Amino acid sequence: MRPLAATIHVARDQYHLAWDASIAPIHRIQSGEVVAFDLLDASCGQIGTDATVDAIRTLDFSRVDQVNGPIFVEGAEPGDTLQVDILDMRPADWGWTAIIPGFGLLADEFPDPALKVWNLQGGWAEFVPGIRIPLEPFCGEIGLAPGAPGALSTIPPYRHGGNMDTKHLTAGATLYLPIEAPGALYSMGDGHAAQGDGEVCGTAIETPMRATVRLSVLKGLAIPQPQFLTAGPLAPRTNTARYYATDGIAPDLLEAARAAVRHMIDHLARTYGLSRPDAYMLCSVAVDLKVSEVVDAPNWIISAFLPQSIFTTAS
Amino acid sequence: MRPLAATIHVARDQYHLAWDASIAPIHRIQSGEVVAFDLLDASCGQIGTDATVDAIRTLDFSRVDQVNGPIFVEGAEPGDTLQVDILDMRPADWGWTAIIPGFGLLADEFPDPALKVWNLQGGWAEFVPGIRIPLEPFCGEIGLAPGAPGALSTIPPYRHGGNMDTKHLTAGATLYLPIEAPGALYSMGDGHAAQGDGEVCGTAIETPMRATVRLSVLKGLAIPQPQFLTAGPLAPRTNTARYYATDGIAPDLLEAARAAVRHMIDHLARTYGLSRPDAYMLCSVAVDLKVSEVVDAPNWIISAFLPQSIFTTAS
Repeated sequence: MRPLAATIHVARDQYHLAWDASIAPIHRIQSGEVVAFDLLDASCGQIGTDATVDAIRTLDFSRVDQVNGPIFVEGAEPGDTLQVDILDMRPADWGWTAIIPGFGLLADEFPDPALKVWNLQGGWAEFVPGIRIPLEPFCGEIGLAPGAPGALSTIPPYRHGGNMDTKHLTAGATLYLPIEAPGALYSMGDGHAAQGDGEVCGTAIETPMRATVRLSVLKGLAIPQPQFLTAGPLAPRTNTARYYATDGIAPDLLEAARAAVRHMIDHLARTYGLSRPDAYMLCSVAVDLKVSEVVDAPNWIISAFLPQSIFTTAS
Repeated sequence: MRPLAATIHVARDQYHLAWDASIAPIHRIQSGEVVAFDLLDASCGQIGTDATVDAIRTLDFSRVDQVNGPIFVEGAEPGDTLQVDILDMRPADWGWTAIIPGFGLLADEFPDPALKVWNLQGGWAEFVPGIRIPLEPFCGEIGLAPGAPGALSTIPPYRHGGNMDTKHLTAGATLYLPIEAPGALYSMGDGHAAQGDGEVCGTAIETPMRATVRLSVLKGLAIPQPQFLTAGPLAPRTNTARYYATDGIAPDLLEAARAAVRHMIDHLARTYGLSRPDAYMLCSVAVDLKVSEVVDAPNWIISAFLPQSIFTTAS
């Protein structure tokens, strides 16, 4: 890959822990300039390659999901749109996935902490022998400062972006974000080496990331919430074989999502002998949630799709 | 394609309008036998190739979503699983899509009826010049009789299947359904030539279908709700180029789904000059709803994915 001519470099310690237009920008750029970010993992460096589950027990949540920036883009005004061309995403050679008590789609069913540390060398993440996830890296956090005064948590996403945890924002994709504050005030973080649609246990394959983006102001285009153009066909490294899918059918979409994941955990435990916490973490990094139907009242269907391509010895 | 040795033929008038274990089976088969169904469209023949929107205004809802069968499979007992190998799906050379007042994800925003009649010859459905949908045919209705006495509507899906409207159940897929009634009592219907995940306006490209399946009883395997193995990589005819996606961000998944579709309708109207009803129907037949994240409380994201491959002249 040819080197990218980054004009601005953001260091790993240039982060903040809230979305807030009063945070002073670390750089001011012209529309169309390229920025390269050196990002710690989403634990802000609290979890390392030698971490054990104790690191989850003692995790300081006030330091989680830091984002690096903000970048002030000249000419950006409320009502404009910021175009983010995602040029490059380079994960570190290691990552982690955790079950964090109180967090995740099935938090009530998984009260105990768990931690998996991954080796990411060679473009794959081996879960156990015979199961490996291809890396399709992206950043969970991409956002702008809010227009209203005050500080917002970095945990949820908002109309101005934030913790969108959208796996399809890989290198080559273009993201559009509504600008609320003068200068847009762009920040990013939360590197993910791979994730399923939904990120069901609350963590992906979390990893330090080198991320490079081009930021451009689109005047006179207003969008209501984030939109994006993917890099190409979806999930090119995983959508190469059959999928096994489990349905969750319920009158409420959240309950349908919970049922679909619960059924997939049962399937993984029964078919591959995984422990239930391991199966839950595997769902979070590799299983995609789709809305199969949301019109046949009163019952909706969320389906959880497990790519068979991750099983190196299976059908 | 080589002809399939169907042992049983079900005629288009051998249908029923409820899931009910008291409906007498039309055939009794051994486990592993093949059944070929000749299916009217989901309007039960009320809508034809020359239909106008008046056919929607006068639609008799009591005759909608008929299913053909039931087939009694010898040896099937409550607690077993029925394996449905989907061998062949052959749509007719025409189909229809409608906005039916009171039905669909945005029913409150689209109070007026609309109808689109499609030509499906050649393996494609042309929406307007420059926009064409590849056919990936399946049946919306695949199900078994309930175990409890009484009649259930064919409109919703249940744990024993029914109107699952799952686009990935194409030829080559294998579906697993929980058996509740002796003999399983299998029926199917609701041919779809193509659909997006979600079927957001409430109808797909509805079409008469010739469907062939093999029905096998799996003794001693109990599953909680439907599960399936897809035929291969997902959406092989549409996942060939980039996707444009619109996010819906909200504390409720249903509201997030509604917002994502609303934003996609705006995008289609602005970018391609479609009327809002046309854009809504195009979403239903071609746009996929994914759960991007459902863990970053309090805001979840549903994303609506528009395949750029349907635009024959576009990026």
